[in-house]
Amino acid sequence: MTPDLRAELIETANALADVARRETLVHFRGGALGVENKLDGGFDPVTVADRAAERAMRAVLAERRPDDAILGEEYGAQAGSSGLTWVLDPIDGTRAYLSGTPTWGVLISVADASGPVLGVIDQPFIGERFVGGLGQSSVTGPMGTRELGTCAPRPLDQAIIFTTFPEVGSETEGRAFQDVAARCQLTRYGIDCYAYALVAAGQIDLVVEAGLQAYDIQAPIAVIEAAGGMVTNWQGGPAHEGGRVLGAANADIHAAALDILKRY
Amino acid sequence: MTPDLRAELIETANALADVARRETLVHFRGGALGVENKLDGGFDPVTVADRAAERAMRAVLAERRPDDAILGEEYGAQAGSSGLTWVLDPIDGTRAYLSGTPTWGVLISVADASGPVLGVIDQPFIGERFVGGLGQSSVTGPMGTRELGTCAPRPLDQAIIFTTFPEVGSETEGRAFQDVAARCQLTRYGIDCYAYALVAAGQIDLVVEAGLQAYDIQAPIAVIEAAGGMVTNWQGGPAHEGGRVLGAANADIHAAALDILKRY
Repeated sequence: MTPDLRAELIETANALADVARRETLVHFRGGALGVENKLDGGFDPVTVADRAAERAMRAVLAERRPDDAILGEEYGAQAGSSGLTWVLDPIDGTRAYLSGTPTWGVLISVADASGPVLGVIDQPFIGERFVGGLGQSSVTGPMGTRELGTCAPRPLDQAIIFTTFPEVGSETEGRAFQDVAARCQLTRYGIDCYAYALVAAGQIDLVVEAGLQAYDIQAPIAVIEAAGGMVTNWQGGPAHEGGRVLGAANADIHAAALDILKRY
Repeated sequence: MTPDLRAELIETANALADVARRETLVHFRGGALGVENKLDGGFDPVTVADRAAERAMRAVLAERRPDDAILGEEYGAQAGSSGLTWVLDPIDGTRAYLSGTPTWGVLISVADASGPVLGVIDQPFIGERFVGGLGQSSVTGPMGTRELGTCAPRPLDQAIIFTTFPEVGSETEGRAFQDVAARCQLTRYGIDCYAYALVAAGQIDLVVEAGLQAYDIQAPIAVIEAAGGMVTNWQGGPAHEGGRVLGAANADIHAAALDILKRY
């Protein structure tokens, strides 16, 4: 990939995140009109925002990268001829969005035949953007712009582990998660894609999830790998098609968690 | 209470939140130095930030309100002669702070003999401040300044309920929570005091917790009551001493949840 193409893809990814930020905030917490407009019968702010944000991102791609393929959570697959695919999840964490918590995110990534090469995790309400891949590894937000970097190896009993729901997925998957979590220092729930951003930012050690879609995980993979971490499935193989996912700050803690998860 | 005293207390509460915001951010996510400084042996950023923020708030009170009493999470009780007590929790949600999530908060309140009359829930990283009591009911943050207002009554099976840990408290308390949560539409975990702010902002219906301290709940009580909601213990009595707490958006949903919780 040429330096020019890398720069163009990074610029396009940021342009996508900009339009998605605008569209998702229109309805967040009642948007510009306040909470009251949520109470109108039948209005579902998440669905409206999800679709509007994906349409806005697709319009940017039609303009800037018409030959790339697209896989979007809301509007499905669109073929391309460039060998590159944009993978879009306009609102990852719809339950968080609906509840008003600041931990949902917009997920944007570009994949080639090998998997994701660039990812963005954007939190519109905070105004915080994590970008990883193609030579970039940065977060821009309330504390300015910083390099991303995962935390150094430490034993499981000093580690912080996250997942979104205590039940995780199936009953077996829930037991697998609890088997790892019981050996960690601290277990936390409920922040969706933001947990992967915290791995990349060096704050936490592990994220374990199940039942993911490709568009849930491709952006986190690129961001975490650019920051020095690892993301695989529970057998140690590629995770970019979704399913059971293990995100880790480094190879040591990845191996320690994988050793438990691969039994399930 | 005179209008002048009300204004002075609100101004003082904001001054306290300002200094606590500064002190807590010094070490959040490694603070000004980035994540690396966390790795120095034995340095505990939460404890350092917690204490520095409470000291800074006590210095403001010594200057502005020397006759008021203080109850702080870190430095305990200090007697006063005015009949007013400032109740301070410099970092509510230390696990969230340590993990880097944006859902911990600074809790500040003023109580008279009847209980809390003014409360502030401040989230320093987002720059978001919820203030309720003495005629105020507002949130200032990324979307500007808005009036607070809890959501209208809806049945439990349409409600959103939050708590911090799935286990909640004792085994009995955990069963009580699950008994309510199983009847709700959506259950979410892990955001500490921010959940009470979301009740006041009209986003969610219920928060159920156990094992709280007075300094965990007095500010949320004032903010939720100013926004039109209710906070009691699980018997329907005052919650300002902590313990088992039920925060609700309105009297109807409060009654529906209390009806279940009071059996435990």
